[in-house]
Amino acid sequence: MRLATLHNGKPDGELVVVSDDGARYLAAPGLTLLSAIENWADAAPVLERLSGLLAQGQGGALDPARIIAPMPRSWQWLDGSAFNQHGELMQVAFHLPPVPTDRPLMYQGLSDRFYAPTANVPFNDPALGIDFEGEFGIIVDAVPMGVSVEEAASHIKLIVQINDWSLRAVAPVEMKTGFGWVQAKPPCGMAPFAVTPDVLGDQWRDGRVCADLFVEWNGAQFGLVNGEEMAWSFPQLVAHAARTRDLVAGTIIGSGTVSNAGYATRGSACISERRAIEMIADGSATTAFMAYGDRVRMEARLADGSTPFGMIDQTVVQA
Amino acid sequence: MRLATLHNGKPDGELVVVSDDGARYLAAPGLTLLSAIENWADAAPVLERLSGLLAQGQGGALDPARIIAPMPRSWQWLDGSAFNQHGELMQVAFHLPPVPTDRPLMYQGLSDRFYAPTANVPFNDPALGIDFEGEFGIIVDAVPMGVSVEEAASHIKLIVQINDWSLRAVAPVEMKTGFGWVQAKPPCGMAPFAVTPDVLGDQWRDGRVCADLFVEWNGAQFGLVNGEEMAWSFPQLVAHAARTRDLVAGTIIGSGTVSNAGYATRGSACISERRAIEMIADGSATTAFMAYGDRVRMEARLADGSTPFGMIDQTVVQA
Repeated sequence: MRLATLHNGKPDGELVVVSDDGARYLAAPGLTLLSAIENWADAAPVLERLSGLLAQGQGGALDPARIIAPMPRSWQWLDGSAFNQHGELMQVAFHLPPVPTDRPLMYQGLSDRFYAPTANVPFNDPALGIDFEGEFGIIVDAVPMGVSVEEAASHIKLIVQINDWSLRAVAPVEMKTGFGWVQAKPPCGMAPFAVTPDVLGDQWRDGRVCADLFVEWNGAQFGLVNGEEMAWSFPQLVAHAARTRDLVAGTIIGSGTVSNAGYATRGSACISERRAIEMIADGSATTAFMAYGDRVRMEARLADGSTPFGMIDQTVVQA
Repeated sequence: MRLATLHNGKPDGELVVVSDDGARYLAAPGLTLLSAIENWADAAPVLERLSGLLAQGQGGALDPARIIAPMPRSWQWLDGSAFNQHGELMQVAFHLPPVPTDRPLMYQGLSDRFYAPTANVPFNDPALGIDFEGEFGIIVDAVPMGVSVEEAASHIKLIVQINDWSLRAVAPVEMKTGFGWVQAKPPCGMAPFAVTPDVLGDQWRDGRVCADLFVEWNGAQFGLVNGEEMAWSFPQLVAHAARTRDLVAGTIIGSGTVSNAGYATRGSACISERRAIEMIADGSATTAFMAYGDRVRMEARLADGSTPFGMIDQTVVQA
């Protein structure tokens, strides 16, 4: 089942169910994705029924211009950094502490808005080092404090694809304080469709999105990375997040930028990682960060050629 | 003007205006504090009118048992650490990096719930080092990205008093990663009343809450600290937070634990700081963190003896 949210002038938008080919939709009247996840046991059968009608050919033409983030805002966004290859490259290039192996890395991020997949994303200072990060995320219903990894898996209701916008000039300054990021992490963007795990078939495996993520910057391929190499699965990230708190329904948890051991051929999902690779290889980084007018596209691709989340296609603009 | 939120079974509760003595209230039908702050220009005159009626003796008796946090949840909670005395004590005791003087310290915290002032607060492991932090906070309406300090001041609509629950065993582990706190910062508690700045009179000065904060642990006074010594004012904290993002209406920004240069006589607003003082003086900390059943009370006191925010009176319980 594939869900999207259409612009209707309200902050949470209008929830719709989308056909497998992304071309048609049926509205889920009175629901938002947040309200649906808050009452998933009731909402899921309603949405599944609409999905069945779409499979029979019903539904209207979906106007891509109306699509906003499937979850335009949520009460909580926690982003992991679960690809150790990324952490190790950053560690070497920037002389950071070793990537911990006994616990996942995770920060609390801004959750009051997620940009539409085709948004013009406003920044007010390109000197801050504007960067994208291609990653996957999951959305849970209400999770009790102290949940086990096994139980955590059952709370994962939806999977999303995220562009975690980052400002690299300020990131290390904020990291050094130990307080994590505020200025370095403005709102993220989200790909058009949130999907139930079954849409990924056997490419949702071991709690990971084992799919390729195509990343393109200004028309040139930047990376074709794969989500399989997470050192921590999404259920492990959920259990980590819930160690000392209940997780409110609608909490989104991210994988962190996708990164592979085969980065030399696969490329990267963020500029910062490419720069780290350059620094390690050549002593200095030659790739600049983004400028006003730059465009980034990201799309997950399954083995059968399908693109479950649709395309992120965002442009950097001056605020 | 003094506002409170009453339990009505809904997540955001029912907004009420409270008399100066905290004894009577009038409901603000159809409003929550979050919806009011989202439309403050319309809501404030309605609330002021109710406040005027209360001043004339109208209103029903306020049942303290119904009071929950004035803002039971919000889209964003950003907590500063603006009392340098606290930072310097922690730095010396724990060999942390120097407190930066060119920018405020701030982290993004959990905002999906704030505990009621008299809540039993659940924890699942006392070995994590359960601690309180007495602090002040402000609530803003929508703030544009890149706001100046001067403009930021005009967006501060309400002032609150907060207990920032913290888990000290995991805090340094998370700090070391640079990613900030997730497990170390479960939900905060809030004192009963959110007040407009005029309620503090000249004790709202230079963008600071220049009031005493009484802190009591298990019946013994722990601190009587004052909010004046913030190295950064609230408008400066707002401008810092908004450097690279719009701030959504209802964003709450905290001062960090109140701490004074005269800590030897004034005491502290968190156990961790007292332990740091002990470590510096004696080589080791003798004060233990909280145990199940422990009780903490916090109350701000103005020069005229009034207590604008009411009392936080929370008890640690086993989840």
